[in-house]
Amino acid sequence: MTDVSDWWRTSIIEMEPGKIHLRGHPIQDLIGTRSFSEMIWMMVRGDMPSPAQSKLFEAALVAAVDHGPQAPSIAAARMAVTCGLPLNNAMASAVNMLGDVHGGAGEQAVEMYHHIQEFDGDLAAALDDWMALRGKIIPGFGHRFHTPIDPRAPRLMTLVEEAVKADACCGAFLAIARGVENELAVRKNRPIPMNIDGATAVIYAELGFAPPLARGLFCLSRSVGILAHSWEQMQQGGRNKGPTPPHYRWTYDKP
Amino acid sequence: MTDVSDWWRTSIIEMEPGKIHLRGHPIQDLIGTRSFSEMIWMMVRGDMPSPAQSKLFEAALVAAVDHGPQAPSIAAARMAVTCGLPLNNAMASAVNMLGDVHGGAGEQAVEMYHHIQEFDGDLAAALDDWMALRGKIIPGFGHRFHTPIDPRAPRLMTLVEEAVKADACCGAFLAIARGVENELAVRKNRPIPMNIDGATAVIYAELGFAPPLARGLFCLSRSVGILAHSWEQMQQGGRNKGPTPPHYRWTYDKP
Amino acid sequence: MTDVSDWWRTSIIEMEPGKIHLRGHPIQDLIGTRSFSEMIWMMVRGDMPSPAQSKLFEAALVAAVDHGPQAPSIAAARMAVTCGLPLNNAMASAVNMLGDVHGGAGEQAVEMYHHIQEFDGDLAAALDDWMALRGKIIPGFGHRFHTPIDPRAPRLMTLVEEAVKADACCGAFLAIARGVENELAVRKNRPIPMNIDGATAVIYAELGFAPPLARGLFCLSRSVGILAHSWEQMQQGGRNKGPTPPHYRWTYDKP
Amino acid sequence: MTDVSDWWRTSIIEMEPGKIHLRGHPIQDLIGTRSFSEMIWMMVRGDMPSPAQSKLFEAALVAAVDHGPQAPSIAAARMAVTCGLPLNNAMASAVNMLGDVHGGAGEQAVEMYHHIQEFDGDLAAALDDWMALRGKIIPGFGHRFHTPIDPRAPRLMTLVEEAVKADACCGAFLAIARGVENELAVRKNRPIPMNIDGATAVIYAELGFAPPLARGLFCLSRSVGILAHSWEQMQQGGRNKGPTPPHYRWTYDKP
Repeated sequence: MTDVSDWWRTSIIEMEPGKIHLRGHPIQDLIGTRSFSEMIWMMVRGDMPSPAQSKLFEAALVAAVDHGPQAPSIAAARMAVTCGLPLNNAMASAVNMLGDVHGGAGEQAVEMYHHIQEFDGDLAAALDDWMALRGKIIPGFGHRFHTPIDPRAPRLMTLVEEAVKADACCGAFLAIARGVENELAVRKNRPIPMNIDGATAVIYAELGFAPPLARGLFCLSRSVGILAHSWEQMQQGGRNKGPTPPHYRWTYDKP
Repeated sequence: MTDVSDWWRTSIIEMEPGKIHLRGHPIQDLIGTRSFSEMIWMMVRGDMPSPAQSKLFEAALVAAVDHGPQAPSIAAARMAVTCGLPLNNAMASAVNMLGDVHGGAGEQAVEMYHHIQEFDGDLAAALDDWMALRGKIIPGFGHRFHTPIDPRAPRLMTLVEEAVKADACCGAFLAIARGVENELAVRKNRPIPMNIDGATAVIYAELGFAPPLARGLFCLSRSVGILAHSWEQMQQGGRNKGPTPPHYRWTYDKP
Repeated sequence: MTDVSDWWRTSIIEMEPGKIHLRGHPIQDLIGTRSFSEMIWMMVRGDMPSPAQSKLFEAALVAAVDHGPQAPSIAAARMAVTCGLPLNNAMASAVNMLGDVHGGAGEQAVEMYHHIQEFDGDLAAALDDWMALRGKIIPGFGHRFHTPIDPRAPRLMTLVEEAVKADACCGAFLAIARGVENELAVRKNRPIPMNIDGATAVIYAELGFAPPLARGLFCLSRSVGILAHSWEQMQQGGRNKGPTPPHYRWTYDKP
Repeated sequence: MTDVSDWWRTSIIEMEPGKIHLRGHPIQDLIGTRSFSEMIWMMVRGDMPSPAQSKLFEAALVAAVDHGPQAPSIAAARMAVTCGLPLNNAMASAVNMLGDVHGGAGEQAVEMYHHIQEFDGDLAAALDDWMALRGKIIPGFGHRFHTPIDPRAPRLMTLVEEAVKADACCGAFLAIARGVENELAVRKNRPIPMNIDGATAVIYAELGFAPPLARGLFCLSRSVGILAHSWEQMQQGGRNKGPTPPHYRWTYDKP
């Protein structure tokens, strides 16, 4: 018979009255000595990042904090505040929206990079195989708004190059992502540059994070913008703010 | 007539194709130069913290990342994963639970510190006035589990003392919180020591964060533990894990 | 020591392998014999409504199912679907928004009706007392959109009158609500007619539901519109639909 | 250029000041004349069910309202209430949990019935094909708790038979589901009887609801139990109730 105290098991935290150990470290030894991003790494993976890994990891977290109130998640947070929700519920409403389409591109891009890496054949064939399996949208490349280029991606790629030089990662996924970018440009006869999701996916893949964590870490990162916008809206006031002003409503489609 | 583009207003982000400025800074200048906790501060408040402020702020964020799967929020995250939810929905389910009782003590403690600071009378009278208005539970003091003491609080208070010496804050709220601790010990004839919420509230109050942000920042911090536990549960597997094993169900109360 | 099987207690459901009793009734005796609205009543309260009570209760549930995609909740559901969320997560995102401002007016109106009923003094004095305690917004009266009148309210009040004749309720809260409507018209020198929340609050108060259930039942009712809109959006398609079209973004407020 | 009022389109609701039409019907004509379950049908599909269709549809909604606080969703609702959340946020936390594993079996069973119906080959071959595509778990059959039989399923199947006689549906999916049950019994050499999800899936498929709606309608149905349990917990009180009593915590797995 399963003992009830066995029902939940974890190697993340060990606790006794007066004692909290996270990943084997007394919490009081972590407070004031570890950065918040090091804590994120350690909590998720168990080990501590090297300084160079930490720097690269932090860059990915910083890059994705916000993309404005046009994004469904940020809009949801702001709407939620005007519905009377406190910050925890507003933040949850927003993070909940980071589904496959809104928050999943990073995860899918890591999967695609892995797929290409493990594929028996060249990159073009690997990409075809991916598209046959997963559809025509190439996660992490192209942007409906940021033309010609998403300013976050080249900056992040420069940091990956520096990290490769510092032996924080090996560069294999950077090479794959650049290969995808080149291949897409050839196929479409115009640049389809890497976007924020493709770029953070390179970093998460280089650092050895599993694909679902690209989404999970994005949720953490975007939670920063979500909090900032929720709080700004709380100070602006407003009651039951829907998507558009009251006199712009919707189009009724007669059945 | 309100123009529709005026319906949402923000001073957090300015965006054009190829341009993302956060609080006036081009995103590419922030990536690789700013820490994640500096970004959190800047996004929420607009300005940049000093190094000493940043160190203190980071300690508060680090301290509250996890308190184990016994907490309803972490349990909710793990249960959600076994229901088939991806990480964004699992994280949202957990953050949603950080309501007045589970996630509100920090916010309430900042309110109480402000109330005491602004009260016309001594600390004991201010505390009585608070209890008359808000009830007998003193937010941020005492712990049902960590006896004699929550190991996070004294460590954080040491860091506040260092920050006062470094002119990162003035120490007024540290003094108030210590006053509350002393007053409670006298009244109850036993120690009711400051807990994690009382301690992070000192930090957030010292750094000038409004009370609701104590909750908002706690949500960010606890999201780290939520992500770690969600991911660990995802690797453990399990389907529809309820709170207890199937043969420990519930007590039926005959009406 | 608390036995773990005592941790959760309920008088709603009794279960053994092959046996499910709800409020003392075998589930198989309820299926096919009880209406969905009777089940809602029975699950929440324990007893069964009379036919006249059931009719009135059902009218309140029917009346509030939808108020269009301008409402933050419905908008959230539709946005969520375009973010790739399945229906359960889209519905949750929307119901979460039914906070104090968006979904709380019915609950507050029941509280106000109770306050007036229990007040030692006439209705005008009771209303003044309520406003002194709770602020100037009178929950359940007036509508920013439906002028001169919300078509749901008079229809519901007719049904309450019929229910009083059928002894399904006593009419005390109907009288109070009409008194509030008259008093407001006198004070403002123009009609401030009862809206959907004021009307359903009369029904829930007449039928003996506690104030928080006015919100809970509204959540059930509005979940119908939420499901319908989520599903319609799923069929329409769309990816990451924010509140407004991409070229209508937001106004950047220079700090 | 897309006009902003075109951004959201719906054929569900038409609204002008003083006018609310749902699916073409003035709301005041629906209130007091239509049952709640008829409204659900109409809102989701546009048309009105026949009396026999309505009866069958209502049975499915009634059958799935609750399965006790052992279920992650109900547990989440009760935990949420003890965290200080009002009913809307508690209900949202619970509905959010009805993901692929916890709330998706009905949807998957409808998909499987459709797959079998459209398959070019006999039922056994169709089932093999399904399992090759979707894995070994047959949605809607077998129950880890209700042995020998889930009492809801046979009762619902009796009602489907009656509905076939009343021409409310044709019985094709009833036949398929019975075929699956027989085939599984032969393959496993023991009964793997239809459960609640398999049974409601027969009804939703018979009535022509698309697969995702089996989940959406389940969410509506289970929201009833979620509300009842949330409210019961609110009356019981309790603060921060985790999954198990405080002294039953978790097992720490040394890394």
